[in-house]
Amino acid sequence: MRQFLVIGHDVPTEPSFSLDDIAGGAGRLDVLCRCVNAAFFLSHDIRENVRVHLVLADEYTVRFEGASLRRLNPDERSTAALIREALEQREEAIGHQPVETSPGVSLYRIGFEATLSAASRGSTVVQLHEDGEPLVDAELPDEPLFVLSDHHDFTDAERERLDDAADRRVRVGPKRLHADHTITVTHNYLDTGGFTTY
Amino acid sequence: MRQFLVIGHDVPTEPSFSLDDIAGGAGRLDVLCRCVNAAFFLSHDIRENVRVHLVLADEYTVRFEGASLRRLNPDERSTAALIREALEQREEAIGHQPVETSPGVSLYRIGFEATLSAASRGSTVVQLHEDGEPLVDAELPDEPLFVLSDHHDFTDAERERLDDAADRRVRVGPKRLHADHTITVTHNYLDTGGFTTY
Repeated sequence: MRQFLVIGHDVPTEPSFSLDDIAGGAGRLDVLCRCVNAAFFLSHDIRENVRVHLVLADEYTVRFEGASLRRLNPDERSTAALIREALEQREEAIGHQPVETSPGVSLYRIGFEATLSAASRGSTVVQLHEDGEPLVDAELPDEPLFVLSDHHDFTDAERERLDDAADRRVRVGPKRLHADHTITVTHNYLDTGGFTTY
Repeated sequence: MRQFLVIGHDVPTEPSFSLDDIAGGAGRLDVLCRCVNAAFFLSHDIRENVRVHLVLADEYTVRFEGASLRRLNPDERSTAALIREALEQREEAIGHQPVETSPGVSLYRIGFEATLSAASRGSTVVQLHEDGEPLVDAELPDEPLFVLSDHHDFTDAERERLDDAADRRVRVGPKRLHADHTITVTHNYLDTGGFTTY
C-alpha cells in the first residue's frame, strides 16, 4: 500500500465554494485535486493499492481509498465536487467516526496530527520536501506514507510533528516541484524499482 | 530547449465550449490543460526553456512559449480559457502566419504534420509511447521534441508519420501513464541527468 497525505492549508471546510473558482475562492483546492489525480490514475486504470488523505485546514480529512473508488475522474472540477459532497455531510462525521460520502471517499473530522497518527500505523513516514536526500539514494520502505504540503511550505508545528514521525526526508529532484508532480515521480520511482529495470 | 507536442483528437476547434465542462463537452480538453501544467510549472516558477504545441483536432495548433508566457496558471480551467481565447481569434491565423493571443500563446492554422515538421527543425523527435524502450536505457538528445497523444492512441496515419520522423520511441515506466504524468517523469529524468545525481 502506498499512502499519500497532503496538507491543504487554505482550502475550505464548508461546502459553499463554487466549482468555477477552485483555484481562487476555494483556497487552491485545485492543488489537492491534482494530487488525487497523480496518486490514482494510470492510463485507463486506477491504482487500487493507494490511499490518499487530504487534510483540509487542519479540521477535516477526506480519505480516498483506491480499492473501492468508483466515481473518480481525472479532471480537477469533478474531484473538487467529490470533496464538496464530502463536506456537505460534515455533520455526520463525529469524532473519529468517518462518513463515506461516495464509494471510496470518506470524511473524517480530524486534522493533521490525528490523521498522521492513524495513517502511519504499520507504515513508514517519508516526508517529501526539497531539503531531503535525493530519491535515487533513498531506500524507500515497503509500506510508505508520503507526506507533502500544498503550495505553502509546512508550518513550524507541522514540521516539528513530522520531524518526530518521519523516518526520512526525501526530495525527488534538483528542482522544486509541485506536490502532484512529486507524487507522479515518486510513483514512477517505485514502479520502476528505483529507476532501474522495467 | 525541451519541446512537447501533444495531439488532442476530440478537442474543439471553435470557442463555443463551456469552461464548466472541459472534461465532457470540450472533448477532454482537460487532458491537454494538464499537459501544459506538467510541461511548464515548477514550484513558484515556470520552465522558460520549454515550448508546447497542442494540436487541436488536426486543424489548429496552440503554441505555448515558456520564455514569454505571462498569464499561465496551474489550474485546468484557466488554461482552457487561454485555449478558448486563442480559438476566438482563429480568423486571424492565416496559412502558417500565427496570431499571438496572449503573451507567449499563439494560434497556428496548421495540423499535426505541419506542426511536427516545423517543430522538429533543429530538434530530435522522440515518441513517448508504451511500446518504446525504457527511459533509463535511452540516451536522450540535447534538443528533444517529445510527441505524445492524449487519452486516445495515435491514429495509424500519425503513427506512420512519426515512424518516419522519430529517432526513437521511449516509454517512461512499466505502467501506462497519462500524457501529463509522462511529461512530468520525462522532465525529472532530464533534470536529474538520467535519474543519477542531483
